[in-house]
Amino acid sequence: MRRQNLALVMGEVAASGPVSRARVADATGLTRAAVSSLVEELRTAGLVAERGPAPSGRVGRPGSDLVVDAEGPAGLGLEIGVGHLGACLVDLGGRIRASVRVPADNRRRTPDVVLGQLARIAAELTETAVPHPAGTVVAVPGLVGAAEGQVAHAPNLGWRRVPVADLLRERLPDPLAALPLDVDNEANLGALADLWCGAGAADAVHISAEAGIGAALLVGGAIFRGASGFAGELGHVPVRPDGPPCACGARGCLEQYAGEAAVLRAAGLDAATGDPVTELARRAQRSQPAVLDALDRAGAALGIALAGAVNLIDPAAVVLGGAYAELGTWLLPAMRRELAARVAVRPWHPQTLTLSALGRGGPVLGAAMVTVRRIVGDPGGYAAGRADRSA
Amino acid sequence: MRRQNLALVMGEVAASGPVSRARVADATGLTRAAVSSLVEELRTAGLVAERGPAPSGRVGRPGSDLVVDAEGPAGLGLEIGVGHLGACLVDLGGRIRASVRVPADNRRRTPDVVLGQLARIAAELTETAVPHPAGTVVAVPGLVGAAEGQVAHAPNLGWRRVPVADLLRERLPDPLAALPLDVDNEANLGALADLWCGAGAADAVHISAEAGIGAALLVGGAIFRGASGFAGELGHVPVRPDGPPCACGARGCLEQYAGEAAVLRAAGLDAATGDPVTELARRAQRSQPAVLDALDRAGAALGIALAGAVNLIDPAAVVLGGAYAELGTWLLPAMRRELAARVAVRPWHPQTLTLSALGRGGPVLGAAMVTVRRIVGDPGGYAAGRADRSA
Repeated sequence: MRRQNLALVMGEVAASGPVSRARVADATGLTRAAVSSLVEELRTAGLVAERGPAPSGRVGRPGSDLVVDAEGPAGLGLEIGVGHLGACLVDLGGRIRASVRVPADNRRRTPDVVLGQLARIAAELTETAVPHPAGTVVAVPGLVGAAEGQVAHAPNLGWRRVPVADLLRERLPDPLAALPLDVDNEANLGALADLWCGAGAADAVHISAEAGIGAALLVGGAIFRGASGFAGELGHVPVRPDGPPCACGARGCLEQYAGEAAVLRAAGLDAATGDPVTELARRAQRSQPAVLDALDRAGAALGIALAGAVNLIDPAAVVLGGAYAELGTWLLPAMRRELAARVAVRPWHPQTLTLSALGRGGPVLGAAMVTVRRIVGDPGGYAAGRADRSA
Repeated sequence: MRRQNLALVMGEVAASGPVSRARVADATGLTRAAVSSLVEELRTAGLVAERGPAPSGRVGRPGSDLVVDAEGPAGLGLEIGVGHLGACLVDLGGRIRASVRVPADNRRRTPDVVLGQLARIAAELTETAVPHPAGTVVAVPGLVGAAEGQVAHAPNLGWRRVPVADLLRERLPDPLAALPLDVDNEANLGALADLWCGAGAADAVHISAEAGIGAALLVGGAIFRGASGFAGELGHVPVRPDGPPCACGARGCLEQYAGEAAVLRAAGLDAATGDPVTELARRAQRSQPAVLDALDRAGAALGIALAGAVNLIDPAAVVLGGAYAELGTWLLPAMRRELAARVAVRPWHPQTLTLSALGRGGPVLGAAMVTVRRIVGDPGGYAAGRADRSA
């Protein structure tokens, strides 16, 4: 019961802080005495702090307000992209306290080398940071199987059955190596970031497109993972059954029409250097016909595959996230056109399809937020684990 | 607590009866005295009965065994097909006590006329039956919206926004008119019948194909309905984006390749009389080339649409149910071939696709079982409702 009440108070401070003890008592239905006792425990655990009174203009002793402790535990998000590595540290208030994103040609490197560099990035980012990481989650562009920490398959990296958690932990220095470490699909983490940081719907298909195309299915605010953890493989939904062969072994998969390589080829940008999505956006902005046409065709293919998904899953919202959110101006019209034409058996509104505000920053932010949400949702469990570790 | 214990005892009698009080006590962890008291309450409510002792060959007074009361409440399932009407009465032991299925050209009749005939069928079936219906569920071949009892859209019947529950209740005689009355999609009820009556998996895509093609998504043993109750519209997943126009307004939907009308046309049987599925099976059995070819092409289209569904939803099983279960011999090879070729990004076994043993008998059986499961799952609630009604 006390553990639940700790979570109630912590949740109120995280959601509404700076907030007075009196307002926490009102919002939670607890007595002021109980709130004071619970706050004391949260302060001792380093989760809640007091902020000196602001001039209130009112008569009487002003009480200091409660805030989450910005120097307390934090969540560390790491990201393995096809063309980059990323890391970000988020404090209990949901603020990004440090972040890094570096280009990295991970397709041409072994998992050993990639994970070695990721470990160094994590160590550097957290070495001098004030809030200390309390847990690490890694976003990967592939299927994460039920066996913990295994990437069952990441075709765009050429990875198969790579034990990401184990390999990374071996390479992390203390104290990072001793922290909880999880691995999840990047689309799943991007969808959770959208949901947690504002605009996302609790029942949504969240598309994360870039080199590969994945999707996360949010059901009731949680990721729907399927029977084996492989749900959301939008990139390999057949768009044209007799279409071009795909790296997965099938034909006519969505990735063959809307994946980065296909779009660059259609736009005549195979040999372009630099960030391909930025390059596509730059040229689309200048109305280059080949680029506009390539993006329109990619949008149509995305719309066809999504029409199947909407007919099957009936989400409340469809969100275009990942790098392609930056191409929304040119992808959305064709996506909406196909969806309107193909989700015809019941009402469908074009505005059900929106752009993620987080774009390609979503997955690594979601990865960091997993730990933050875990602590805020069960501060008593965090405090107990901390006591165990120092015993 | 007593209500939960009533459900424990009822569940054990339903699952294992005939069963002795001693075995019920062992299985539930309740004392024999508690079991005897709970059994007495279930007997009074007309849910459990005693069966005289069978010769045991053992020394001592043989105790009588407990069974569900076959004269107690029952579930009434009703079914509106495109070409038939059906009804079935199932007792607490899951036995079909009465059933009827009559051809009916519902496509050419108004909802008024169809529901009038269905009400007469229900009245006749239950008039002389010994177990009395305690609730009615109607299976319909269309989308059932969130507004209770509304068929939002049943394109194969030409129905739009028909208030099925209200129209049917007005036509039912007492006491049927006063019972709980629900409406659900026929694929959903077919999937539940498969799950409850034996072979079904708890995480499955259940295809129900006939005039139209629907699917039910089972997640953790429950129907996944989506944000608006419209999930499972497999029939309108695009198979070939530029394919023939569909009645729904889109192009190249699965129904245009594997729906009954498309298959009959491809098989050259447009003008055949009698039950079209039986006719297809009869001719396929005789290896008529046009029929074999039509079924192989339908199977391929089903496989393509299902490949998208499996990549998105990751079910543990895929089940071909409804009328097409009777055509499994000729549909399954092409379905498995396409699934194997198109679910390539992770392991997929052809045996994951199986046939429903219930076939076109599934939906009406599932409709009747809903009420049976509700009573067995909460016998105390049933007894209390009964006392309220007689008060």
